[in-house]
Amino acid sequence: MKNKMLANILYGKNEPLLFKETNIPIYKPDEVLIQLHASAFNRRDYWIQQGQYAGLRYPVIPGSDGSGLITQIGESVAPILKGKAVIINPGFFWGENEKAQSPKTFKILGMPDNGTFAEYVSVPAAYVYPKPPHLTHIQAAALPLAGVTAYRALFTRAALLSGEKLLITGVGGGVALTALQFAIAVGAEVWVTSSSQEKITKACELGAKGGVSYKEPDWAEKLKKSSGEFDVILDSAGGEGFVELLNLAAYGGRISIYGGTIGTIPALSPQKIFWKQLSILGSTMGTQSDFQEMVHFVNKFRIIPIVENTLPLSEAETGMKIIKNTNQTGKIVLDHQQ
Amino acid sequence: MKNKMLANILYGKNEPLLFKETNIPIYKPDEVLIQLHASAFNRRDYWIQQGQYAGLRYPVIPGSDGSGLITQIGESVAPILKGKAVIINPGFFWGENEKAQSPKTFKILGMPDNGTFAEYVSVPAAYVYPKPPHLTHIQAAALPLAGVTAYRALFTRAALLSGEKLLITGVGGGVALTALQFAIAVGAEVWVTSSSQEKITKACELGAKGGVSYKEPDWAEKLKKSSGEFDVILDSAGGEGFVELLNLAAYGGRISIYGGTIGTIPALSPQKIFWKQLSILGSTMGTQSDFQEMVHFVNKFRIIPIVENTLPLSEAETGMKIIKNTNQTGKIVLDHQQ
Repeated sequence: MKNKMLANILYGKNEPLLFKETNIPIYKPDEVLIQLHASAFNRRDYWIQQGQYAGLRYPVIPGSDGSGLITQIGESVAPILKGKAVIINPGFFWGENEKAQSPKTFKILGMPDNGTFAEYVSVPAAYVYPKPPHLTHIQAAALPLAGVTAYRALFTRAALLSGEKLLITGVGGGVALTALQFAIAVGAEVWVTSSSQEKITKACELGAKGGVSYKEPDWAEKLKKSSGEFDVILDSAGGEGFVELLNLAAYGGRISIYGGTIGTIPALSPQKIFWKQLSILGSTMGTQSDFQEMVHFVNKFRIIPIVENTLPLSEAETGMKIIKNTNQTGKIVLDHQQ
Repeated sequence: MKNKMLANILYGKNEPLLFKETNIPIYKPDEVLIQLHASAFNRRDYWIQQGQYAGLRYPVIPGSDGSGLITQIGESVAPILKGKAVIINPGFFWGENEKAQSPKTFKILGMPDNGTFAEYVSVPAAYVYPKPPHLTHIQAAALPLAGVTAYRALFTRAALLSGEKLLITGVGGGVALTALQFAIAVGAEVWVTSSSQEKITKACELGAKGGVSYKEPDWAEKLKKSSGEFDVILDSAGGEGFVELLNLAAYGGRISIYGGTIGTIPALSPQKIFWKQLSILGSTMGTQSDFQEMVHFVNKFRIIPIVENTLPLSEAETGMKIIKNTNQTGKIVLDHQQ
């Protein structure tokens, strides 16, 4: 077997990704070597390039999402895995506490360890799952990180039920779109906000009941008039707009937070939180159980992740530039066989 | 049977309670008439007197907590209840949703309907529970509102477990002290904050492991050095100090809010909430199940509510003045037989 491969390598903060030859990873006894057929971008990759991430290390091959075939297995791995088509749970070493990852052990594939923007990646065998049979490698690569994040935030944390009303704020991103698909699959009534009418229209085509632009000054009131109050709200923005979410939530409502792109949440009323018995629930990534349930869910409802763009593996830096521009709705995927 | 009784009546905002003769309540077919042996104060009574409460109505007999004997029963009530010693769940008509009270139907005994600062009160039979046999009427009267509020906030909402570390902020109040007793009973490690060293000492006598004064500028850091991080935090203050609670919470920590005496919570970091997978959980009062479980818990662990002061029924206005001064640790109870 050859010992060289092509990969996209980040040599430092604010550097472009360079597509170069490097060594094929050496897999440990409990690891598998995967020949990646596709990988996908997350906002995390862009932040890593910007240096806005804890524990940065260079050079590194970024990429948390991947789908491919197991070509080699470590000596303690079950031989049956060899040749299998798999996706990877990119959240490694969560730890014992189902409520949160261990800050001492938890890491995400693609930083500090080398990730999926390469011909090969080695990962612990415990983190590979069968590729959903109804998905191509390109579709499957778009699933893992967004899928597990959306699943945990919506179901494990906010316990969204069929028939409940859900608001997804800022519906452009990968997690938000995946959450939209999951929520519609279970029979929730979904509403969205976005800065872009195009994204709202796209969300409605996917099954959302309606939406408003959060750029309108009276967006929350306007939304409430159409939708009524929400049982569950999924937010990754924070900022001033968060205050309105307390008003939009029904009594007993759950607000699941999986990001904070706009920033600090100002001036919340404790009275509103306790009298309406709201739950504000932080969520990030997911446990192995979350991932397993998510894959089962995707198979059961035959969910197909939304891929907006595919690029050849050699053009990962172009993908980074698209991610920087937040206007895409759907995942950017690298097709490693193109 | 006589049809007049003595009661403490509030005739308007900022008026003193007047101890006067009035009619014994007329009980409906599904109600019971209770001859109260004791009643107890809550901060709510003071707010009602100050006019800081929604849906005020005068004249009214305040009082949410009571213990006594059932002397009369409505025609649709089981005769076996007659003569029974009971306490009252003061949260009426919660509604179908276990997650929160219905804002349309929920009400608390003592406003707008007449409450327990009287010789008699009539309440729906569904809301009476056997007085815990190990408690006197005076002790039992101190239990209901604080007990159900503490129980729901700690167990139903924050799911506090044996062995977990709990912080109770502002440990003077009735709910906080009751929560302290409940948490110690289940084997949690409890820490407290207060503005008063005396209250901290009192909490430690009751089984708390330690505490700090939140008036010290570096109270949170100082506390964290002794205690480490908390699995559960119980807060009824809000305000600036709330920001520190996010730092004091462990990964996966739950912060239960049942009040907001200091006010607006400023500037929270969404990153901290989602990366630490925190849960900020509003809680108020409790369902019938919460109340029933709480009574069972109090019986099982032979919890005795802390009564700081007893006054005769005629001196309810003195009780209001004591409540206004927040320095008491423990309940103010009216002994109706004194």
